[in-house]
Amino acid sequence: MTADYEAITLLEEDNVAWITFNRPDRLNALNDQLLEELGHALDFLATSDSRVIVIRGSGRAFSAGYDVGSDSNEIGYAHERSPVEDRDRQLANIDLFLKVWRHPLPVITSVHGFCMAGATQLCVFSDITIVAEDAVIAASPAVPIGGGFISPLWATIVGPKRAKLMSFDAGHRISGVTAVEWGWATEAVPADALDEHVRALALSIARTPTAILKLKKEAINRVSELQGLVTIGRMGAETDALLHLTPEVQLLQNLIKERGLKGAIAHFNSGEMKF
Amino acid sequence: MTADYEAITLLEEDNVAWITFNRPDRLNALNDQLLEELGHALDFLATSDSRVIVIRGSGRAFSAGYDVGSDSNEIGYAHERSPVEDRDRQLANIDLFLKVWRHPLPVITSVHGFCMAGATQLCVFSDITIVAEDAVIAASPAVPIGGGFISPLWATIVGPKRAKLMSFDAGHRISGVTAVEWGWATEAVPADALDEHVRALALSIARTPTAILKLKKEAINRVSELQGLVTIGRMGAETDALLHLTPEVQLLQNLIKERGLKGAIAHFNSGEMKF
Amino acid sequence: MTADYEAITLLEEDNVAWITFNRPDRLNALNDQLLEELGHALDFLATSDSRVIVIRGSGRAFSAGYDVGSDSNEIGYAHERSPVEDRDRQLANIDLFLKVWRHPLPVITSVHGFCMAGATQLCVFSDITIVAEDAVIAASPAVPIGGGFISPLWATIVGPKRAKLMSFDAGHRISGVTAVEWGWATEAVPADALDEHVRALALSIARTPTAILKLKKEAINRVSELQGLVTIGRMGAETDALLHLTPEVQLLQNLIKERGLKGAIAHFNSGEMKF
Amino acid sequence: MTADYEAITLLEEDNVAWITFNRPDRLNALNDQLLEELGHALDFLATSDSRVIVIRGSGRAFSAGYDVGSDSNEIGYAHERSPVEDRDRQLANIDLFLKVWRHPLPVITSVHGFCMAGATQLCVFSDITIVAEDAVIAASPAVPIGGGFISPLWATIVGPKRAKLMSFDAGHRISGVTAVEWGWATEAVPADALDEHVRALALSIARTPTAILKLKKEAINRVSELQGLVTIGRMGAETDALLHLTPEVQLLQNLIKERGLKGAIAHFNSGEMKF
Amino acid sequence: MTADYEAITLLEEDNVAWITFNRPDRLNALNDQLLEELGHALDFLATSDSRVIVIRGSGRAFSAGYDVGSDSNEIGYAHERSPVEDRDRQLANIDLFLKVWRHPLPVITSVHGFCMAGATQLCVFSDITIVAEDAVIAASPAVPIGGGFISPLWATIVGPKRAKLMSFDAGHRISGVTAVEWGWATEAVPADALDEHVRALALSIARTPTAILKLKKEAINRVSELQGLVTIGRMGAETDALLHLTPEVQLLQNLIKERGLKGAIAHFNSGEMKF
Amino acid sequence: MTADYEAITLLEEDNVAWITFNRPDRLNALNDQLLEELGHALDFLATSDSRVIVIRGSGRAFSAGYDVGSDSNEIGYAHERSPVEDRDRQLANIDLFLKVWRHPLPVITSVHGFCMAGATQLCVFSDITIVAEDAVIAASPAVPIGGGFISPLWATIVGPKRAKLMSFDAGHRISGVTAVEWGWATEAVPADALDEHVRALALSIARTPTAILKLKKEAINRVSELQGLVTIGRMGAETDALLHLTPEVQLLQNLIKERGLKGAIAHFNSGEMKF
Repeated sequence: MTADYEAITLLEEDNVAWITFNRPDRLNALNDQLLEELGHALDFLATSDSRVIVIRGSGRAFSAGYDVGSDSNEIGYAHERSPVEDRDRQLANIDLFLKVWRHPLPVITSVHGFCMAGATQLCVFSDITIVAEDAVIAASPAVPIGGGFISPLWATIVGPKRAKLMSFDAGHRISGVTAVEWGWATEAVPADALDEHVRALALSIARTPTAILKLKKEAINRVSELQGLVTIGRMGAETDALLHLTPEVQLLQNLIKERGLKGAIAHFNSGEMKF
Repeated sequence: MTADYEAITLLEEDNVAWITFNRPDRLNALNDQLLEELGHALDFLATSDSRVIVIRGSGRAFSAGYDVGSDSNEIGYAHERSPVEDRDRQLANIDLFLKVWRHPLPVITSVHGFCMAGATQLCVFSDITIVAEDAVIAASPAVPIGGGFISPLWATIVGPKRAKLMSFDAGHRISGVTAVEWGWATEAVPADALDEHVRALALSIARTPTAILKLKKEAINRVSELQGLVTIGRMGAETDALLHLTPEVQLLQNLIKERGLKGAIAHFNSGEMKF
Repeated sequence: MTADYEAITLLEEDNVAWITFNRPDRLNALNDQLLEELGHALDFLATSDSRVIVIRGSGRAFSAGYDVGSDSNEIGYAHERSPVEDRDRQLANIDLFLKVWRHPLPVITSVHGFCMAGATQLCVFSDITIVAEDAVIAASPAVPIGGGFISPLWATIVGPKRAKLMSFDAGHRISGVTAVEWGWATEAVPADALDEHVRALALSIARTPTAILKLKKEAINRVSELQGLVTIGRMGAETDALLHLTPEVQLLQNLIKERGLKGAIAHFNSGEMKF
Repeated sequence: MTADYEAITLLEEDNVAWITFNRPDRLNALNDQLLEELGHALDFLATSDSRVIVIRGSGRAFSAGYDVGSDSNEIGYAHERSPVEDRDRQLANIDLFLKVWRHPLPVITSVHGFCMAGATQLCVFSDITIVAEDAVIAASPAVPIGGGFISPLWATIVGPKRAKLMSFDAGHRISGVTAVEWGWATEAVPADALDEHVRALALSIARTPTAILKLKKEAINRVSELQGLVTIGRMGAETDALLHLTPEVQLLQNLIKERGLKGAIAHFNSGEMKF
Repeated sequence: MTADYEAITLLEEDNVAWITFNRPDRLNALNDQLLEELGHALDFLATSDSRVIVIRGSGRAFSAGYDVGSDSNEIGYAHERSPVEDRDRQLANIDLFLKVWRHPLPVITSVHGFCMAGATQLCVFSDITIVAEDAVIAASPAVPIGGGFISPLWATIVGPKRAKLMSFDAGHRISGVTAVEWGWATEAVPADALDEHVRALALSIARTPTAILKLKKEAINRVSELQGLVTIGRMGAETDALLHLTPEVQLLQNLIKERGLKGAIAHFNSGEMKF
Repeated sequence: MTADYEAITLLEEDNVAWITFNRPDRLNALNDQLLEELGHALDFLATSDSRVIVIRGSGRAFSAGYDVGSDSNEIGYAHERSPVEDRDRQLANIDLFLKVWRHPLPVITSVHGFCMAGATQLCVFSDITIVAEDAVIAASPAVPIGGGFISPLWATIVGPKRAKLMSFDAGHRISGVTAVEWGWATEAVPADALDEHVRALALSIARTPTAILKLKKEAINRVSELQGLVTIGRMGAETDALLHLTPEVQLLQNLIKERGLKGAIAHFNSGEMKF
C-alpha cells in the first residue's frame, strides 16, 4: 500500500524515513484519509531499515489541524452520530498519535508555516520538534468548536499558565521562536534551513543503534507517563465530545457550515455573537 | 456588600470584572480584611455576567504579600494562639486561592511593581499572569519568617532549581521579563501598557462562551492536580506553622516587632545575627 | 580522613564548604575514588558548621562524567561481573547523588568547562546549579555506551523534548546560556566571574538559619519526588545495565578499549560502524 | 435554619452530631432539598461544639441514591438543559461530598437497609462507614442511566476488579458483611445494634481533641488525594453527563418515565430491550 | 482465520464470546501460537456483536503460564538473542494483555485448576476474574527464572505485602478462596458451577449497552493507570530481561533443560543448589 | 559491635538472620539504643551471608512502640528542644525504617503479643509480616500524643477507611486475624507455631538467590513508591512535630509524666479531660 498513499508521501533515504503530508491545497488539514495513511506508514516503518522518522508538511504549512472545512466530516459529526461514537472518533486520533509516542524509532516533527490545533497534538507526542523560526503555532482553533482535547497536552510540556493562554484565547498564535523558548519545540531555524537542519539531526541520531535508542526513548517516556500523559490525552476525548453537544459549540459549528471557516472566524471575532 | 468593599474595589465592565487591591499605602499587603473581601467578590462573580476576572493592585505595587508590618496580625500570631490555629489560618489562605483555581471564570493576575511572597501564591493559582517588564517579584520575604509555604507552589511551574534559588536566598528578586522566561508569568509588557494589554486579552478571551472556557480550565487544571498541586499547597500550611515555632523564626519575628520591617531587613542582611 | 582526600579537596570558609574535584588531568572524571571521597565529605558536612555546600571542578572542567577511559573500571565492567552487580554499581551512584538531594544543607553545583553525562546527574540532584556562560554541557556521552540512566533525570527539569534531543543525539552539547534558558541551570555568568558569583550567593543563602533552609529544601523536594524523581533515578540503573549487555554497546566499549576514547568517537562519528 | 430542616434532621448530643436523612417514604433518595440541607448542616457543624458527625437514614434505608423517580429532577434533566449544566449539577454533588471529606470533624456514615448508587459516593467520601450486616449495597443503579461517576470512587478503596463487578453488572448488590471484607466499610454489626455501636465509637473518637483529629484526618486524606481521588471524583461528572446524552441512556430514562422505576427495572432485566 | 485457531477456540453465543485455551496436554501453557491467536481473537471481537468476552482454559487448568518446558522458546531465549530482543518479546506479552485492558468489551477471566505466573498477568489485566474455589494460583514459577515482571502487577491489586510473599517464595500457591479474600479475584464458586456462574454473570452484564459499558470501563481503568499500572507493566519487561542474563537464572534455565521442569523443581527445592 | 548489642540480639543461622528485640521488661519499646542497634545490624547484614532477615520481639510482645514511659526521651522532648530538632528525630526513625524497605535482603517481621504505634511503622516498611492469630495491634497509642505519623502509612496498605478507624479511635486494637484480612499482615498462625512457620518461610525464600530477590523487591517497592509512600512517611515527621507543640498534646504528655502511662490512659478514657 506504500505506493498507494495519496494524502501523505513516504520516502526512505539514508536510514531516515520522511513522511510528508500531501494535502497542500487544504494546508494539510488532518482528514480521515491522511490519518489512516499516517497510521499505516508508522506500522510499516516499525520493521523497516530506517532509524529515524521525520514528519513534515508539503506546501505552505505543516498542518492546519483537523479538517474543519464546512464540507468536512468534523463539522456536524456529533449531531449525526451518538456522543460515544464522537468520543471514540476523538480517542482514535489520540491512539494514532500514541503510535508515534510508542514507536520504536525516534520521531521528529519538522514544522513550518501553520501548525494549528490538532496538528499540535501530533507534535506533543512526537519525540523532537524542530520549527521554522517564523512558524505560526496555535493550540486552539480560531473558532472554539470543542475543548479540553489539545491544551492539556500542551500543559504537560509548557506548564499550566502558557497552556491556558493558548486555550482560553481562541486562535492565540506563537512563533517558532517562542515555541522553543517555552520548550514546546526543541530548536528553531530559519524556514529555508529547516529541511537541511532536520536531515543533519536525523543522520546524527541514526549513528546510534535502534536497540539503544528504543530504550532511551522508553525511559524518557516513562517520566511523562508517570505524570499522567496518556490518561490526560485519552480523557480529552470525553471532554471534547461533551462540549460538541453544547448549544454554544453547535452554534459555532453551524456558523462554519453557513459562512465557511473564514466567514465564521470574522463573525466570531466581531464580538457580535450572543451565547 | 459589593458596595461596601474597602480593601478592594470591584468593577464590572464589558464582561470583564476588575478586582483591584485598594491598600496602596501598605503596598496592598494582604491583611484579613482584604482576603475576606477578595473571597466575597469571587463568590459574587461566580454568578455574574462577567466572563473574565482580572486581579490587580492600585498604586505602586501589585501586592507586598501577607501584611507583616510590626502592627499586623501576622507577626506574633503563632505565639498567641495554638499551632493548629496558626496552621488553619495559613490553610484558609490556600483555600481562598483555590477559589481562584476552581472559579468557573478565567482569572488573570495583572502584576506591576512589587509582587512578593504570599502575593505570588495567588498568582500561581490564577490562570494567566501578565506582568510589567519591570515588575519586581520575590517568592521569599526579605526576612525569612516561615518556609515551605510558597516556593513549592513555584516549583510546580518553574521546576525545583529556580524555586530553590527563590526560596533559599531570602528576598531574591526577579523581573517581570525573567518571570516570563521562566514560565511563571505568561507575557510581559511595558508597565504603562499593562492595563490596556490585559483589557484586550480579557476581551479576546470573553469571545468564547463561559461553558466552553469552564471545561477548558478544568481540563488543564487536572494536569497540575494529578501532579499533586493541591496537596502541595495544603501541606505548606503545616510546614510553615511548624517553622513559626522555631526559635530562629521567633527571633526574626521579634526583630520585626522591635525595629520595624526595614530595620529588620537591614539587620538580617548585615550577617550579624547569631542563630 | 578529611585531610587524606586526594580526588577531591574540601575547604570550609565563612560558613561555606567548597568541595573541589581534584583530577584535573582527567577532566575530573568520576572514578570510584572520587565518588567515595565525595560521599565521605557529604557525610562529614552534615554535622559541620558550614551552612551551604558548593561542588566545583579544578582545572579546565567541572567533570567529564564517569571515567570511561580505556583503562577505567567502567569499560568492560558488565562483562566481567554479573548484570546485577553492574546494576548495583550504577544504583550506588544514584544513591550517592541522593545524598546531595537529601543533604540538610543547600548544595550548589558550580559548573565551568565540560560537564558531561554522569556529571549532569549530580547537577540534577543538586539544589542550585550556577554555570559559566560558555560551559559545555552534554547528557549523553559522545559514544553511547548505555542509556536510560541520565536523560530521564533531565526530563524531570527540562521536559521530554529537550531531554530526548540530548539523549538521542549522542554527545549533543548545549552552552551554559542555553542550560539556563531551559531551567536546567539557575543562573549563567561569565566564566571568570563564576567563583565570585557563587561565593556571594552562598553567603547570601547562609544568612538564613539551617533549620529553616532544611525544611524549605524538603518542601520543594517533595514536588519532584511526588512526580517520581527518585524512582526514575533508580530505574535507570536497570535500563543501563541491560543495555551494557547488548552487542551494540559491547561493540562500542570494545572500540573504546582498542582505539581510546578519542579514536572511538572519531570512528563512531564516521558513520562507518555497522550494528 | 437548623430548625427548618425538612429533608434531614440534625441532633447534637454529647459532642456527637447526628444528621438523619428524613425522607423515609422515598427511601431517603437524595433530592435537591436534601442535598442542600446536608450542605448547610455540614457548614453549621464546622464551628459547633460537636466533635464527631454521624450521617444515617430514617426508616428502612440509609438512602436509595439520587432520586430517579419518574417525577424527579434527575430524569430528563440532560434533555432540558445544556450538557455543561448537567455536568455542573453532577459536579456540585461531588463538591458537596467533598465537604464531608474536607470537614474538620470526623464523619461516620451509619448504613442500614439500602445504600444505592449516589449514596455510596457519600460513603466513600466519609471517613468511617459502619454497616448493618444485612445492609444492601449497590454502586450501579438497577437501570444504568449513566456511568463513570460512582464506581471509579469505589475503585480507590476496593480495587479495580470489585469496582468493575459492581459497575458492569447493573444493580449488583453486596451485603454489609461483604462490604467490610472488601474494606469499603469498616465494621459490620447486626442491624439492631448499629445505632448503639456507632454511638459508642463516636464517643470513643470524641475523647481525642478536634485539633489532633483534624490533622490526623488531613494526613490520611493526603494518601488518597496523591493517588488522584479528587480528580477522579470530578472527572466522573463529565463522563456521566456525556453518557446522559447517548440514545441508550435516553431510552432507559424514557422507560423510567413511562413505566415508573419498578416497571423499568423489570423490563430492563427481561433482556428484551434492543439497543 | 477464526476457523483456523488451533491453540484456542472461539465461540460466540447469546452475545457472549468464549475464548477457550486449547492446549490441555500442556496445561494451556502460553506459547507463541496461543498468544498470537488470542491477540487475533481480541481484535476480531472488537467489532463483533458480542457484548462480553470470557477467557477460560480447557482440560485441567486455566493456564500454567508461559511455556517453560525444556523444549519451549522461553528457555534459552535470552542466550540466543540480544537482551533488547528478549525485552521486546516480554514487552509484546504485556502489550497483548493491554489489549484486554483496553478492549471495548468487558473481559472476564474464568479460572479453574492451575493459574500460574504469566497466566496471572492476563488475569490482572482482565476486568473481572471468577475463580473455582479450589483453583491453584501462583505468581512466581516454581523455579524462579526471572523477576519483576509479574508480582508488581499483583501489588497494584493486593498490596505490596501479599505480592512480596507470592514473589519471594517461589511457587507459593493460594487457593481461589484466598484470591477472592485478597481482592485479586472477584468471586469464587465451586469448580463444577464455574461455567454456569460465569455465563449468568456475562449475560447479566450484557443487559447494559456496550456504549455505556465502554465508558464505565475506561473510567475505572483511569484509577489504576493514574497509579502507574501501565508503566509498571512495561518496566517489568526490562527487569525480567536483565535477570535472564544473570548467572543465577542461567543456572536455573540450564537445570530445566537438563532435568525437565519437574526434575528442576525437585532439585531447586532440595536446597542443594549453590548460587 | 555485633557482640555488644544489648537492646537487640542478632543470630545468623542457616542463611536466616534473626534480629530479636531484647527489652522484654519494657515490652520491647523502641528507645534510642534499640533503634541505633537495629540500624547497625541492618547495615551489617547487607554484606553477610544471610539471605533473609527476621525481626521479632522477646518476651510477651513484638514491641509496644516508641518508649513513652514517663522516664523516656519521648515525653517532653519537644519542649526541651526546637521543633525542627523534634522533626529531625522523627524523620530519623522513618529513615531507619527505610533501611528495612531498601535493604537488599527480604525482611520479615514476626509479630506476637503487642505491636503498637511506632512498631507498626516498622512492620509497614518490612516486606512480609507474619502474625500470631492473637496478636494485639494498634496504630494509635492509647493516649494520642501526636498524629499523622503512623496511620497514613497504614492507609497505603489497608486503605483510608480502616486507617482512619485505627487513627481516630485512640488505642483501637485489631487481632492478628483481622490484620491478615485487611492485608496489613500476610499470614496468621497460632502464637506457638509462629517461630516455626516463619523459619520455614524464611528458608523457602532463601532457596532463591539474593540477586534475584533483590530485583523482585525493588520492582514491587516501586509500585508503592510511585504512589507516594516515601513522601508520605517523611511528611509525617512534620505533622507529628507540629502536633507535639499543641496545648492538647502537651496536656496529655504532662498527664503521662504525672500519672505514668497506665494512670494517663485511665484518665484519658474517663472522658473527664477538658481540652
